[in-house]
Amino acid sequence: MPSALTTEHLRLDLLGAQSKLLSAGTRPLVIVLAGNAGAGRGEVAGHLAEWMDPRHLRAAAFDPKTLDTRPVTHAFFQALPPKGKTAVFFWGWYGEAYYGRAQGKLDQATFEKKLKQALELERLLVNDGTILVKVWLDLEKKQQRERFDAFEKNKATSWRSNHDDWLEHRNFKKYAKTRDAMLAHTSPAFAPWHFIPAVDIKERDIAFGRAICQAVDDAFAEKPKGKAGKAEKPEKPAIVYRGKATLANLDRAESLSKEKAAKIIPVLQGRLNKLIRDKAFQNRSLVVAFEGSDAAGKGGAIRRVAGAFDARFYRVIPIAAPTEEERAYPYLWRFWRNVPPQGKATIFDRSWYGRVLVERVEGFAKPEEWSRAYREINDFEEELRDNGAIVVKFWLAVTKDEQLRRFKEREETPFKQFKITDEDFRNRKKWDAYEEAAKDMVAFTSTKTAPWTLVGANDKHHARVAVLKELVQRIERAL
Amino acid sequence: MPSALTTEHLRLDLLGAQSKLLSAGTRPLVIVLAGNAGAGRGEVAGHLAEWMDPRHLRAAAFDPKTLDTRPVTHAFFQALPPKGKTAVFFWGWYGEAYYGRAQGKLDQATFEKKLKQALELERLLVNDGTILVKVWLDLEKKQQRERFDAFEKNKATSWRSNHDDWLEHRNFKKYAKTRDAMLAHTSPAFAPWHFIPAVDIKERDIAFGRAICQAVDDAFAEKPKGKAGKAEKPEKPAIVYRGKATLANLDRAESLSKEKAAKIIPVLQGRLNKLIRDKAFQNRSLVVAFEGSDAAGKGGAIRRVAGAFDARFYRVIPIAAPTEEERAYPYLWRFWRNVPPQGKATIFDRSWYGRVLVERVEGFAKPEEWSRAYREINDFEEELRDNGAIVVKFWLAVTKDEQLRRFKEREETPFKQFKITDEDFRNRKKWDAYEEAAKDMVAFTSTKTAPWTLVGANDKHHARVAVLKELVQRIERAL
Repeated sequence: MPSALTTEHLRLDLLGAQSKLLSAGTRPLVIVLAGNAGAGRGEVAGHLAEWMDPRHLRAAAFDPKTLDTRPVTHAFFQALPPKGKTAVFFWGWYGEAYYGRAQGKLDQATFEKKLKQALELERLLVNDGTILVKVWLDLEKKQQRERFDAFEKNKATSWRSNHDDWLEHRNFKKYAKTRDAMLAHTSPAFAPWHFIPAVDIKERDIAFGRAICQAVDDAFAEKPKGKAGKAEKPEKPAIVYRGKATLANLDRAESLSKEKAAKIIPVLQGRLNKLIRDKAFQNRSLVVAFEGSDAAGKGGAIRRVAGAFDARFYRVIPIAAPTEEERAYPYLWRFWRNVPPQGKATIFDRSWYGRVLVERVEGFAKPEEWSRAYREINDFEEELRDNGAIVVKFWLAVTKDEQLRRFKEREETPFKQFKITDEDFRNRKKWDAYEEAAKDMVAFTSTKTAPWTLVGANDKHHARVAVLKELVQRIERAL
Repeated sequence: MPSALTTEHLRLDLLGAQSKLLSAGTRPLVIVLAGNAGAGRGEVAGHLAEWMDPRHLRAAAFDPKTLDTRPVTHAFFQALPPKGKTAVFFWGWYGEAYYGRAQGKLDQATFEKKLKQALELERLLVNDGTILVKVWLDLEKKQQRERFDAFEKNKATSWRSNHDDWLEHRNFKKYAKTRDAMLAHTSPAFAPWHFIPAVDIKERDIAFGRAICQAVDDAFAEKPKGKAGKAEKPEKPAIVYRGKATLANLDRAESLSKEKAAKIIPVLQGRLNKLIRDKAFQNRSLVVAFEGSDAAGKGGAIRRVAGAFDARFYRVIPIAAPTEEERAYPYLWRFWRNVPPQGKATIFDRSWYGRVLVERVEGFAKPEEWSRAYREINDFEEELRDNGAIVVKFWLAVTKDEQLRRFKEREETPFKQFKITDEDFRNRKKWDAYEEAAKDMVAFTSTKTAPWTLVGANDKHHARVAVLKELVQRIERAL
């Protein structure tokens, strides 16, 4: 093989691939780079930085020591490249599972669960347009030994194989078994592993580069490829209405006098304040999502919740149409970005459910996009809960008449006019479609540990008290 | 006073101010909210969220427990609002100084140093166009006692004054003395404190809102206001050339054979690798900036440095023209964003020095902007070093002829063509202006603990070895 020539060609092809990605600006490229110790993961990534334009390429590695208390997927999402750009993820989302299992720290069931979660994340990314290239650089045991010996023989390179590497070498069988299981479990058609022998360095580099070029070419040639998913509803809709209320039978007119609410609210705020100062809460967190039609009273309810807390404890994240930056990432990116660390709360004023509400009804998301979102959202919330988060979701429901009354009130009160726009009236015309979407949402995402709480909100005093009560109960039960 | 009417008017005025900010999109509004316990900081912020459009308003509080190991200014910068938007900072950059001093944890000198740093940060923000409103909500001792007593009397509100609040009350004198010193030290004309009595709640709220409206009005009316700074050079230029090299006398042609470099580089990489694995490095960090004219060989040098490290240890941040998002913040924002936590390294391929190089020469920054940047940059690096960072800055210097040779080589080599554009030739025409800017940069920012290292780079082998050697020495000396 005329390898000098081949490398030059490869460099041009890689630059061409990068240029295609950049000029299209529609898809990011993520390279998951795994392999045995000594197989040259760092070297290969170094070559890539030399061969491609490094301004549009980033590398990320995830060191458990420097991750904060948020779920690890938070770190993965924050490291994703925007559309058009490339990232090399050392070990991707496989590091913990692979090393944990090979070193005997994870049992088989946990190992498999982590692999399953890795696949779900990949499914989400691929469905969103990410070009995903997963590479395993492989050395056999004898080859690994030879590589390490070569490092050690030369004083200048002896630092390249350290204590951990030799430990891995001595337990080669366990690592090989873990590798085989991992590759076997995580090679669906939509995200296969490239198994690249790493014994010949030049061939390894060429194969690595070729895999990348090929993936980009395929993606833009729209060749038929493994599908990560099509329009779908979650396989087992987890209908768990709390209490007996459904959106259909909910009493939206339930009420409470202003005076009674004024007495109850501070008491509930005090209980809430005490609960989150509890020692047991310090390794939990609180994620609250407020949804409901326009003028349902989300802002007022949120201020009553926030009023119970010290400013250091919580953040309120208002969700409007995504910014240009946010649109360069999968839609869950901006929610991952804002999940709280342990001991803290995030209150979302509108949330990730926009995907199956406004984006569905207004056609901003395609049917295959919003229909798979139920599953993605359930995965998202499951990971939050696995990490100790208490996930509380409120749907504030007003009647169509009450909404109109509030719209008019807003129009007539000078300092409320900013809250009402023509768009609100346009949305109102689709009232039935929104109700339909909300019904589906509750049906497909009301899970046992993250159930929807439906609140009749024609009377704001009742709604605020109901919200605070539910929060107190949910946290009490969780601690 | 017809207070209901006044509140309504205030709400309209606040909405008007917010609308002005948003439609101009040129200036952010930052409200620093401090005051005695019980004076109602949380309440006041809650009202603001009710009175303004909460989609364009955020609140931030800085909990020492959840900050990572980066300098605290990292957290302040990340919480800044983009142009057009508003943020309420509970305690702003004063919390640590105020509580630390009042509780006797900080000596007077440290207290004053922290206040000075707070002022420097405010100077930077105001110079950058931030509208800054600093509010102290004040209760006298007797008033505080009455407020706490009132909370306690009512079971529903007794949680509002906690143990820490009472402790503060018992030490009222110390806190009052600290407050007086703080307000006196940090009220320059460009960032005065608003001292607002908080005993009458309605009057407090109105005064708070009025202060905000007034500040926004003044800013857009372009009234003469306290100046945070005009075109300036740092008062005491800290000329600390390392060795005897200056940009004028530097030997740009120093060379080393390829063979020798190939032997030395792995040895230096090994030493570097060992150093950063040293226990003593774990509460330090490494910040490396690479500057130099186009085609000076920054990329190649960076890859040799990166080749010494495990992927988890470092990130390379290439600095190109700022994105739309980055332009919505002060220019140091994107560098603060990327400073490493302890135990890690960030390598900048071009850096914050762009402000006094390309932005100066090309006119992207006004003279008063780039000239004050020397001081801002020295402050920035000082804070990094105070936090344990080893700051290493390389200027790779090629001769004008060598640059031309490399440009031509890039044009003629297919896989290097992406590295060369018309802009490079345009920049080249301003060679002398760039040299002049680089000389000033070295003169004004080569400080004792963050000196510039000038590297003759006509020969890339020599340059790479020189870079690695300097890094090894600097880290060795620091540990």
